[in-house]
Amino acid sequence: MSEEKNEVFSIFEEMEKYGHEQIIFNYDKATGLKAIIGIHDTTLGPALGGCRMWNYETEQDAIIDVMRLSRGMTYKCAISNVMCGGGKTVIIGDSKKDKSDEMFQALGTFVETLKGRFWTGTDVGTVGMDFVSAHKQTNFVNGLPVEYGGSGNSGIITAFGVYRGMKATAKEAFGTDALRGLTVAVQGLGKVGQVLVGHLLDEGAKVVAADISEENVRKVKEAHPEVEIVKPEEILGVTCDILSPNALGAVINDQTIPSLKCKAICGAANNQLLEPRHGKKLFEMGIVYAPDYVVNAGGLIAVADEFQGFRKERAFKNAGLIYETLEQIYKVSREEKLPPHTVADLYVEKKLETIARLQTKYTGRK
Amino acid sequence: MSEEKNEVFSIFEEMEKYGHEQIIFNYDKATGLKAIIGIHDTTLGPALGGCRMWNYETEQDAIIDVMRLSRGMTYKCAISNVMCGGGKTVIIGDSKKDKSDEMFQALGTFVETLKGRFWTGTDVGTVGMDFVSAHKQTNFVNGLPVEYGGSGNSGIITAFGVYRGMKATAKEAFGTDALRGLTVAVQGLGKVGQVLVGHLLDEGAKVVAADISEENVRKVKEAHPEVEIVKPEEILGVTCDILSPNALGAVINDQTIPSLKCKAICGAANNQLLEPRHGKKLFEMGIVYAPDYVVNAGGLIAVADEFQGFRKERAFKNAGLIYETLEQIYKVSREEKLPPHTVADLYVEKKLETIARLQTKYTGRK
Repeated sequence: MSEEKNEVFSIFEEMEKYGHEQIIFNYDKATGLKAIIGIHDTTLGPALGGCRMWNYETEQDAIIDVMRLSRGMTYKCAISNVMCGGGKTVIIGDSKKDKSDEMFQALGTFVETLKGRFWTGTDVGTVGMDFVSAHKQTNFVNGLPVEYGGSGNSGIITAFGVYRGMKATAKEAFGTDALRGLTVAVQGLGKVGQVLVGHLLDEGAKVVAADISEENVRKVKEAHPEVEIVKPEEILGVTCDILSPNALGAVINDQTIPSLKCKAICGAANNQLLEPRHGKKLFEMGIVYAPDYVVNAGGLIAVADEFQGFRKERAFKNAGLIYETLEQIYKVSREEKLPPHTVADLYVEKKLETIARLQTKYTGRK
Repeated sequence: MSEEKNEVFSIFEEMEKYGHEQIIFNYDKATGLKAIIGIHDTTLGPALGGCRMWNYETEQDAIIDVMRLSRGMTYKCAISNVMCGGGKTVIIGDSKKDKSDEMFQALGTFVETLKGRFWTGTDVGTVGMDFVSAHKQTNFVNGLPVEYGGSGNSGIITAFGVYRGMKATAKEAFGTDALRGLTVAVQGLGKVGQVLVGHLLDEGAKVVAADISEENVRKVKEAHPEVEIVKPEEILGVTCDILSPNALGAVINDQTIPSLKCKAICGAANNQLLEPRHGKKLFEMGIVYAPDYVVNAGGLIAVADEFQGFRKERAFKNAGLIYETLEQIYKVSREEKLPPHTVADLYVEKKLETIARLQTKYTGRK
């Protein structure tokens, strides 16, 4: 009996386990839009999170994804000193075939129903122009293209944040934050990886890189002929000082860990650890792992800056503070003998708990 | 393969089938509240619908219930000329054990997040004081007790609406709307049935009645000794002119239809037809069936009146119009040779479609 019961997926059970506030199913008859909005935690402010469009195999996959991603945004906001909560949207559909201006307008009307409790923008499968459509129906969108008054392409500031995070990580691993002379293996040369490579070369690092897209590789080779290109399947095993995953998630797992030949890991990819225990393993091996959601917060920091009227200089200054945040995390990690990703998680949970308690005390139940 | 797939319950499939706009899962960590808000259709205005608290066996049962009930509210509002859409909330829990002031405050905070897109109040398992709690966190509640500024107990106005509907139904079945001399079998002597019995006796009808609660039976016998009481299992088969179901749903089904000895059916119970085909069967048998959601709209009409500042006289006047609405429905039913419940459904669907088209034209997608 109990085994059978465990097989039934329950949304409320998941919400209870991870503390989600609301999971909102939105359906628009006219355009066929099927979007789920996940609002994980609004203790710190309105929920912020992009909109992913993906051809999920099952509805359950979509629900699990939006819950996982919205929860991730809570952590990313809290550790980045962005006064926002964690949210996310997923649209079930093929981003190559099923998109229309009307569909994103319909998304906009649903986002509008939440009256600013949730803000969204681009993510995997969506682009700035989709939110220009959504914006016709709601103001609660971020990261619009620059010509529409938004902060635009977030790749540049994200790469800057990764670069700053890498310097803090180098300091922890090698005693100095100078990257000169270090070898950095960069996995992924997309809109973040491309820009990151430039920062690394400017500072005199040696860069080994790989990407599954030949187009991306060609672009980087053209701009920076000194970059050594290896095959995508080789990059995680390259002998280097710092490995920088900027593509897939879950790259740190039981299969890859034995082949790692790096002393530190710092990159923009989301959910680099397949499971938390893999971060513990890195810690035991003496590999300094920079928690991904600390490192890749540049894009979030840029869209959050829009709440104050976007100023590029301020956004870059705040993204630069990823250095100082990591310094603190590494310090506690050393003192408490805890892996850095655990330190970051505990910091976030403590912060939310404290603020939630204060809110209940001063503005909560009557 | 396809058979296996059919077994998986999909929220979006149900939304697509019935045209729901939003299904919102709300979880409150502090009180353990698990509430689902269903917003079926807001073409006519903000969604309106009570809050049911029930110990659902599975989460899926709760989802199906909130979808079915919120859809019913759309139809009830549209046919009653209430400019509201259809919504509903269900709370998963035992209304005898799991309630607290804090839990309904938590519900209030979630209702508040929708900023007036959804209004709620009492239903099965909840009472006025629960919404006095919710009201501490949101204004978007209706039907508060009179001493808290609401329209209070809806049983009286609902019974008045049923009485008016019964007169229109008598006119259709017997050529005159006078109830004098008719025998009415009343199933259920709760807060609606009790009051209805008074109206019927006042007009000189003979009343046969039943209730599973001995307390309810005793009360009615005390007030009206002339009422003939039968056993609950006998009431549907009583020889009578009009049967008035005011208790359970699904009382018109394959088992009960052969034993019916009435010429018309008119009562306040929700979802009296197990399936639409059972209404078709009544029509073929020459039994006049007053569509339940037309007849029992008195409570809705009262809470909707609160939007204009509740005035009892106006609310009763509008509930009285259930007579005229049914007259129209029966007229079309005769002309088009369609069962009355089908006429009502088609009227609602046509109305929503027309208004939705106008809205798209003048205020919709840009």
